Amino acid sequence: MEIQRNKDVKIPVGFRFYPTDEELIIHYLKRKVYSLPLPATVIPELDVFQTNPRDLPGDSWEKRYFFSKRTMNLNKCSNGCWKATGKDKKIVAPGNNQTIGVKKSLIFYEGNCKKTSWVMHQYSLITSLSTQKIRMPEGEWVVCCVFRRKTKRPAMNLANNISQIASPSCSSGITEISS
Amino acid sequence: MEIQRNKDVKIPVGFRFYPTDEELIIHYLKRKVYSLPLPATVIPELDVFQTNPRDLPGDSWEKRYFFSKRTMNLNKCSNGCWKATGKDKKIVAPGNNQTIGVKKSLIFYEGNCKKTSWVMHQYSLITSLSTQKIRMPEGEWVVCCVFRRKTKRPAMNLANNISQIASPSCSSGITEISS
Repeated sequence: MEIQRNKDVKIPVGFRFYPTDEELIIHYLKRKVYSLPLPATVIPELDVFQTNPRDLPGDSWEKRYFFSKRTMNLNKCSNGCWKATGKDKKIVAPGNNQTIGVKKSLIFYEGNCKKTSWVMHQYSLITSLSTQKIRMPEGEWVVCCVFRRKTKRPAMNLANNISQIASPSCSSGITEISS
Repeated sequence: MEIQRNKDVKIPVGFRFYPTDEELIIHYLKRKVYSLPLPATVIPELDVFQTNPRDLPGDSWEKRYFFSKRTMNLNKCSNGCWKATGKDKKIVAPGNNQTIGVKKSLIFYEGNCKKTSWVMHQYSLITSLSTQKIRMPEGEWVVCCVFRRKTKRPAMNLANNISQIASPSCSSGITEISS
């Protein structure tokens, strides 16, 4: 029986890391920020803003999650830059209306402002100090989910992907680098 | 730390049952047909063809998987019928070109032929006897994946879903009934 190994837990074949926004904030990002143990070692640390999305590890046709340090200067990235797009989305705790995080959408522009199909959802934590809601400061952990906007995947890549996602690592293809 | 329980294995929060067609055939359906232990007890047995899709257990906005007995008479279902649509898709084993299964798409028609947004992907096994490829006979296990074609989910249902998918059961919402 094939079992995907995830350091401390065994993930049965067919299961993939597809968290909801709330799960990502509550069970992964918040615990990372407060140095608490995580449910699974499935999100590696990587300076996403210093890496061209084409060079990120894992299957580029799957959503890939990384812990990265929050930076205000999104232009610092390699061979291009990430630019914010759309409105930030508040993530609220299930069961009450308390804002626990923010999801920001960004698009990668290559070289001299050539828009690409690379998208990032950057999740950051919001903490409450009495009535004040404070976004975690620069340098604090965020979760970056990087993916390609849907276009038809080339047939060759599809075949590669099938073998990759059936591999003993997590389907997001990112457990090769341990967090 | 929240852990989703799956009878014998503990699935960390954020992981969901999203198998590829090949994984479903090789690791679940084939093993079910040959009475071998399954990687996880995540697919319940249910006579899908005798049940109106609205009455199937679990979250109707998620893909739900069921082991059902193969039937040729798709008109026997409750308050409507499933009709095949499109071409069957051959599922081939990764690494070679051997056909291991067939994926058939069906649409549910309610009452007197009113087309609905309910879709079923029915996976059946193909076995090879020398050069002959034989589909498993009527009465043999198939896997039925039932879902609604994408329309905007009502806001209320979304809130309900968030609590449901964060529950200790599998996100597909089908582990409430054990296989």
